[in-house]
Amino acid sequence: MSAKQTLLTGLQPSGDLHIGNYFGALKPFLDVYKDYQSFLMVADYHALTSVRDGAKLRQGIIDIVRTYLAVGVDPKDAVIFKQSLVQEHTELAWIFDCLVTVPFLQQAHAYKDKVAKGLEANAGLFTYPMLMAADILLYNADVVPVGEDQRQHIEYAREAAAKFNNAYGETFKEPKDMILKGVGVVPGTDGQKMSKSYGNTIPLFASKDVIAERVMSIVTDSSGDKPENVYAIHKLVRSETELEPIYKEYAGKYKALKETLIDDLDAFISPMRERYESITDEQVIAVIEEGSAKAREIAKSKMEAVRAVVGVA
Amino acid sequence: MSAKQTLLTGLQPSGDLHIGNYFGALKPFLDVYKDYQSFLMVADYHALTSVRDGAKLRQGIIDIVRTYLAVGVDPKDAVIFKQSLVQEHTELAWIFDCLVTVPFLQQAHAYKDKVAKGLEANAGLFTYPMLMAADILLYNADVVPVGEDQRQHIEYAREAAAKFNNAYGETFKEPKDMILKGVGVVPGTDGQKMSKSYGNTIPLFASKDVIAERVMSIVTDSSGDKPENVYAIHKLVRSETELEPIYKEYAGKYKALKETLIDDLDAFISPMRERYESITDEQVIAVIEEGSAKAREIAKSKMEAVRAVVGVA
Repeated sequence: MSAKQTLLTGLQPSGDLHIGNYFGALKPFLDVYKDYQSFLMVADYHALTSVRDGAKLRQGIIDIVRTYLAVGVDPKDAVIFKQSLVQEHTELAWIFDCLVTVPFLQQAHAYKDKVAKGLEANAGLFTYPMLMAADILLYNADVVPVGEDQRQHIEYAREAAAKFNNAYGETFKEPKDMILKGVGVVPGTDGQKMSKSYGNTIPLFASKDVIAERVMSIVTDSSGDKPENVYAIHKLVRSETELEPIYKEYAGKYKALKETLIDDLDAFISPMRERYESITDEQVIAVIEEGSAKAREIAKSKMEAVRAVVGVA
Repeated sequence: MSAKQTLLTGLQPSGDLHIGNYFGALKPFLDVYKDYQSFLMVADYHALTSVRDGAKLRQGIIDIVRTYLAVGVDPKDAVIFKQSLVQEHTELAWIFDCLVTVPFLQQAHAYKDKVAKGLEANAGLFTYPMLMAADILLYNADVVPVGEDQRQHIEYAREAAAKFNNAYGETFKEPKDMILKGVGVVPGTDGQKMSKSYGNTIPLFASKDVIAERVMSIVTDSSGDKPENVYAIHKLVRSETELEPIYKEYAGKYKALKETLIDDLDAFISPMRERYESITDEQVIAVIEEGSAKAREIAKSKMEAVRAVVGVA
């Protein structure tokens, strides 16, 4: 029996990650996941709260798993599974729904934000904190890596566990959040935070041509020797010790510095890109199926205990 | 292939039915169920919106199925199954949750009534119309027998079907409601509607002693030859043609009339009571398991189509 703690993280099946995602989320995960019994869940049922395009969702699921494999996650060291292949998730979510009140769920950020914008939230968005609680609690997760803004999710999972334990006896472990240490804000080509919505990204698996095009578009002011926006991206992929003499040698020569960045980005990206391109859909599906079978076994056993105490078994 | 339409009805696992339930719901069901491909679902996951006592729920599930068997439902002519044994119900409910808005669910009677009383509804009570929609739509039910006050449930199921079909293409059949013709209001021992909450019931499987005690408690005014409250119950179990001469013969003799009613109720109840008492828990569980396996097969096949179009398979 392993003395490792259990870690669970959810992957949104949205394609087109960029190096901001890599340094903000993927890399911090890669640094720690082998220290835990790690579960990577493709949150496809959560995705239904916003995606209504079946073909897009199906491809997004494959692509996000391919991405994790390409950046170096070893399926031998993590259970990679698809939420929708483990029916116990929606089943347990229903049971939690029966234990929490409507006003309690009305306090959730995602729902409040939607309503504050004058939009009608769907009922999935309203109750998704209980599906997320089920995701976490089915596997007795000790820690769940989240960004600062997602701490509430863990609060909801803790509350669901406490309410269930209170009603039916000690069954679930209350999880802890874990703030993964990323590099802070990753700047985009315009100096703002790198974000798809700003159109200032460098795609994670970009070809050298795309890298070159994006790097050439980096906004530089014409004063000063060191183009800050170039340097800020550069130091993500090469140590500052190595960069100092280069930026001294090419002081003021923005084009030469950008060309160096293109080469360094390509050297960093190309091994991952090649892996990404070499992994077939079939290989990804096999990984998902194998992981989901493992997850199902654990979830099923947990649900047997749950079903017994609530009285349906 | 059968040309029969499909009928689905849900059973609440609440024990202690009375003859008011028999004549209002069980009998009308017995009269028609063989004309359909009938599904009887024990709604144990719905019950969790109000029951938090595992042992009570477990027994309630067994007792309600035993009741249906005792009154004459033949498991060869109906698929008797337990909702919680078919995980596709909560799974499809989640998908419907993602398609309907919070304000839409806020219009549901059960939720509105709760809030109107100043109570905090749980989220299960809030979203249960989508679980009920899943119950119905998984089996392509054509008709769902409901009381007048439950028509809204079918409306919600129709709306869920329409929203899904609109988003993903024609997948679900929109069900119709079917108002079962019972005998109208069944009067209790005090002349009011027979109801557990009024304490005026005759239990469906009452012993002769209990029948006698309840009948003797029937409220009769001391004027007039015919005790209306006695007669109103009497005519449920014996034809008025047969009763007329008896009530003429014993005009004004309330005790004699009550004794006749006791005998007639016992003659009506005792065969069902004997069946009820002879059916073991093990037999009930075997019926539920066999029916649930059949239901699961149908639900699974339907969900395969659903999963494909929403993009999770």
